[in-house]
Amino acid sequence: MARTNLLYAQSGGVTAVINATAAAVIAAARERDDAVGTLFAARNGILGVLGEDLIDTAVLGAEEVDALAHMPGGAFGSCRFDLDPPERNPAQYDRLFAVFAAHGIGGFLYNGGNGSMDAVAKLSAAARARGYPLACVGVPKTVDNDLEGTDCSPGFGSAAKYAAVAMLEAGIDVASMASRSGRVFVLEVMGRNAGWIAAATALAAQTADEPPHIILMPEIPFDEDAFLAAVDATVKRLGYCAVTVSEGIRRANGTLVMEQDHDRKGHVQLGGAGQCIARLIHARLGHKHHWAIPDYLQRAAGHLVSAVDHAHASAVGRAAVEAAIAGRDCVMPAIRRLSDEPYRWDLEFADAAAIANLERRVPAHFIRADGLHVTDAARRYLRPLIEGEVYPAFARGVPDYRRLKLPAVPRKLASYVP
Amino acid sequence: MARTNLLYAQSGGVTAVINATAAAVIAAARERDDAVGTLFAARNGILGVLGEDLIDTAVLGAEEVDALAHMPGGAFGSCRFDLDPPERNPAQYDRLFAVFAAHGIGGFLYNGGNGSMDAVAKLSAAARARGYPLACVGVPKTVDNDLEGTDCSPGFGSAAKYAAVAMLEAGIDVASMASRSGRVFVLEVMGRNAGWIAAATALAAQTADEPPHIILMPEIPFDEDAFLAAVDATVKRLGYCAVTVSEGIRRANGTLVMEQDHDRKGHVQLGGAGQCIARLIHARLGHKHHWAIPDYLQRAAGHLVSAVDHAHASAVGRAAVEAAIAGRDCVMPAIRRLSDEPYRWDLEFADAAAIANLERRVPAHFIRADGLHVTDAARRYLRPLIEGEVYPAFARGVPDYRRLKLPAVPRKLASYVP
Repeated sequence: MARTNLLYAQSGGVTAVINATAAAVIAAARERDDAVGTLFAARNGILGVLGEDLIDTAVLGAEEVDALAHMPGGAFGSCRFDLDPPERNPAQYDRLFAVFAAHGIGGFLYNGGNGSMDAVAKLSAAARARGYPLACVGVPKTVDNDLEGTDCSPGFGSAAKYAAVAMLEAGIDVASMASRSGRVFVLEVMGRNAGWIAAATALAAQTADEPPHIILMPEIPFDEDAFLAAVDATVKRLGYCAVTVSEGIRRANGTLVMEQDHDRKGHVQLGGAGQCIARLIHARLGHKHHWAIPDYLQRAAGHLVSAVDHAHASAVGRAAVEAAIAGRDCVMPAIRRLSDEPYRWDLEFADAAAIANLERRVPAHFIRADGLHVTDAARRYLRPLIEGEVYPAFARGVPDYRRLKLPAVPRKLASYVP
Repeated sequence: MARTNLLYAQSGGVTAVINATAAAVIAAARERDDAVGTLFAARNGILGVLGEDLIDTAVLGAEEVDALAHMPGGAFGSCRFDLDPPERNPAQYDRLFAVFAAHGIGGFLYNGGNGSMDAVAKLSAAARARGYPLACVGVPKTVDNDLEGTDCSPGFGSAAKYAAVAMLEAGIDVASMASRSGRVFVLEVMGRNAGWIAAATALAAQTADEPPHIILMPEIPFDEDAFLAAVDATVKRLGYCAVTVSEGIRRANGTLVMEQDHDRKGHVQLGGAGQCIARLIHARLGHKHHWAIPDYLQRAAGHLVSAVDHAHASAVGRAAVEAAIAGRDCVMPAIRRLSDEPYRWDLEFADAAAIANLERRVPAHFIRADGLHVTDAARRYLRPLIEGEVYPAFARGVPDYRRLKLPAVPRKLASYVP
């Protein structure tokens, strides 16, 4: 069997376990040195391919690869960058394939979400059109859990675990502080269009009286009066109320609930829904209010990784290498659920082109009829994804995340000028 | 030796380890059943004493006491309530001593911060004035680390560890996302008047180029131009910048930097400094900006407790019981540092009255000359306090915090009407 070189890259928002996928890719490629020559990693995703900024992963010792599996962030750098359509910018694709050719790349593994699957589909089509032999494999990753074609997305389980633990712990804190006027706590979690992380906070509760008492998801238009009535009833019953809100909740007219804060290009910067909700409660009901916005902490919490999520992330990395070696093109290894309890799963392969740019939202049967919480069906789906703990090593009080030295390999091509 | 009953209560903002103190109080009292009859706990701090809402801690089994030691929040409930001066409201003290007398209380253990030490001092003086035999013992607790008379405050080490880990993990995340315009991340931590938790995020870094690049503490007036210049220089050097900010930073004219959000009584609600700083950077320098506000999560993170902090919290609880048995009045067990590295410590006793209402701020020699970071002296002080990990048991993906049943003992007095 002729050996080929592979290229791995990370894309989009990083997760607590994307490096577990990277470590599995490296380990699998090393085990298959009968088929894989060099495994390169591109720095900063597809931007590193365009810039011919490549790392030979052989620089990492075995112990470093093991450590990589427990590090948050994207060790090789990530980016948010969409490829142009090939017909509009053929020069961009000329460059990508020039880099592939210069380094003997026969397989490209792109580790990302919906947008990355779009890149996989475009590159796959372009390779076929050019007659370049490339196995283009999407490797799923997103905290948002919004990828179609897979039962869940690696990265989500750990974000979900973080959010559930945050609600559990903050909820105990809030409950223990006596107040005559009532106390309200709002936890804002990620989710612009899909409420998966918010839904997962339901796993903090053992009974309906435990936090979170209300979960606001983007799938349901925000009804201010119904929401405030539910808060009021909860405070009257328990003396406090804990609310989870997805950053992207909208009113029935489509406007975002959060304060809008436009950046220089007019992009909306999210991050204010929790504050808006907390202030609304305070203004209308008069309760003491606190809000927490974990922001990046929820997707970077290497100290609180779900063992199931970690196993998923590793498995898709290994499967992607096998797929590339087998010459499977435009596919994405996906998680298939076999049973909820005990949780059993295996892998299947999905068509990356069919997944690209789709967005899986929380389905109606996972959302309680009043739109303010989740159903038992949601709990059955979510629970296994946060189970088990994988702790990093600690040193001097903090996780002992390695500082990896990742020198670029010498460039073979002229600089890229877009 | 005649046996006496003790009364334990929790006060002020709770911490990740205040229940470790409670568990140690219970365990120590059980071991000293030669001297202690019943150990009561008041529900919701001093409010529970006034309301004669008492729990006999004998209801907790040994296994529950062990579990209690690893639960965040205040298991018996806490409150923010200041006793009136005895001369202004003698009826309040009449009630307190009536409750003490009705339940045979010879020792009162109040677990709190500066305000609680004030309560200890007032109760102690009132007991002496009345000739009521009471050993009034303050038990230190605050995430703010602002108690005088002790090298550090139980509760702080775990909040500091949480904040350092948050900055480490989010910093890795931010660093891994490529951006042409530069990225800025702001972590807002607790600290209205003292920057201890903010300072502790310095422990995330191994070099000056690692997050946090800037630490803003309330001890130093916020200088917008100097700050923005430091952010700009960091982004130019590294491509991104991570900033820690205490919630209570103020400008030179004394105004809070955060957006002011007055509640109905005109009290300022803190919680917006991070957002203000992030938006300022964005408006003036144009960088992409994110901010995180862990809020209660940083003081409730039972899943990320410092082993040293946990040991401190347990030790002060045990010492408080011994002090009460010995009839020591108006004292507070305090942490005494014997050496930084290896870290060695023991306990001493401080005068609770001398501590009451003081506030220990970060000293000048812990703050870098430019006011934008900490010194090595600060790191030497802070490092031992976050060391070691104490994990709670997990069940079904989240910490297995017990739901304790804590029935009130029958009241012996008429209801209290303030």
